[in-house]
Amino acid sequence: MTTGQDSTRGSLTVVGLGPGATDLMAPRALAALTEAEIVVGYRTYLDLVRDCLNPKSEVISSSMMQEIDRCRKALQLAEEGKKVALVCGGDPGIYAMAGLVYELAKAEDTTVAIDIIPGIAALNSCAAVLGAPLMHDFAAISLSDLMTPWELIERRLQAVAPADFVVVIYNPKSKKRTDQIVRAREIMLEHRSPETPVGIVSGATREHETVRLTTLGTMLDEEIGMQTTVIIGNSQTFFWRDKMITPRGYSKKYGL
Amino acid sequence: MTTGQDSTRGSLTVVGLGPGATDLMAPRALAALTEAEIVVGYRTYLDLVRDCLNPKSEVISSSMMQEIDRCRKALQLAEEGKKVALVCGGDPGIYAMAGLVYELAKAEDTTVAIDIIPGIAALNSCAAVLGAPLMHDFAAISLSDLMTPWELIERRLQAVAPADFVVVIYNPKSKKRTDQIVRAREIMLEHRSPETPVGIVSGATREHETVRLTTLGTMLDEEIGMQTTVIIGNSQTFFWRDKMITPRGYSKKYGL
Repeated sequence: MTTGQDSTRGSLTVVGLGPGATDLMAPRALAALTEAEIVVGYRTYLDLVRDCLNPKSEVISSSMMQEIDRCRKALQLAEEGKKVALVCGGDPGIYAMAGLVYELAKAEDTTVAIDIIPGIAALNSCAAVLGAPLMHDFAAISLSDLMTPWELIERRLQAVAPADFVVVIYNPKSKKRTDQIVRAREIMLEHRSPETPVGIVSGATREHETVRLTTLGTMLDEEIGMQTTVIIGNSQTFFWRDKMITPRGYSKKYGL
Repeated sequence: MTTGQDSTRGSLTVVGLGPGATDLMAPRALAALTEAEIVVGYRTYLDLVRDCLNPKSEVISSSMMQEIDRCRKALQLAEEGKKVALVCGGDPGIYAMAGLVYELAKAEDTTVAIDIIPGIAALNSCAAVLGAPLMHDFAAISLSDLMTPWELIERRLQAVAPADFVVVIYNPKSKKRTDQIVRAREIMLEHRSPETPVGIVSGATREHETVRLTTLGTMLDEEIGMQTTVIIGNSQTFFWRDKMITPRGYSKKYGL
């Protein structure tokens, strides 16, 4: 790929905004946004931080399905010598843009400096609003088969269900993709009680946050969409008041 | 449990400090620390934020192994009507104090308001300094058998190894506990190539940060301790320059 006149100073910072509440975004992320000459991102995420941006910065927003163009553009501008921030919701390193940026950087053999600023991911924020469901070993699985064969996703569900992992499900369902969460639940039910606690969260820490506590048996009665995270408890997970808790083992060991 | 005279205003906020760099701690966490009347925590974590604390706050520090006493004390002070912050490194909800607080709260049937402020966990920060190793489905497993039978830990390793999960290992080793990481590697090697990329990180984002890239074959040559996080790649994970990257599948699908 051609490099610009001033490529030595160009840089690409991939910035995790966290779950959406401004006070859950790290100061380092905010600094990267205000210092960037160009801020690139998916419209919805840019809207979350528009007030934080430097009025002098150029802002390039795109729609959700254009992530390759978005990352390529960000990398290209950095190669031309610009200081670029690419924004992601949550943590760039968990089902977000960090990997794609590196896949493109490798393909284009760029020498641009790339930096990842981690953020509070959906799994962290959803766990916090639910209580403490991830206190023991857990697996994160995306049910989107856009780029992963369904057979592999199912194999992963089959693996973790009998090994009693707490399971965090990303991308459980979309308008066109409705069967996967049904099948995922079936697989879990082959190994866990229908009474197993399940937490369903969308918009964690944001105005439209919804938190629902349900069970494996009844979880499909709840509304689940693309923006929803589903956390399925292990055999020890319990509800207490309005919280979902997976014990680490203190009660058993020390008889609290 | 007895409640104090003014228990209606008491509260316990469990605060995630993030990985250690002050600019990776959320403003909400900082606010909770400055607003607390009493700040309770493990000494090492308190040292990270001592400059942020309100000089008027009482600070109660303890050593690492006293986590039950520490949480019980924090809960008790909140029940007496105090505004208490309990600090945790990383994210309180991932192998930290959120679960124990709820286990104790349930045992003591407290009515105190409990709030969890999520943070950037070790898995988030270690992934960011390594590049993008967690871009596909992953499992987090602690090798500490203090409160979890080793048989269950081994069953979990056996489950995720053939299902090609990226694996994040917490608590890989301590002075007294040295065999588990050896066994974990053996299990992974039954299903993955010795060339599989492995990232070993300690002190992510802190002054003494060390980041090492190695492979399943050679990982035991590296120093590994209690403060180390080990990330074992899946069959697609690769090294590029000094980064460890697990592709999401864009290159394969779109031929970048």
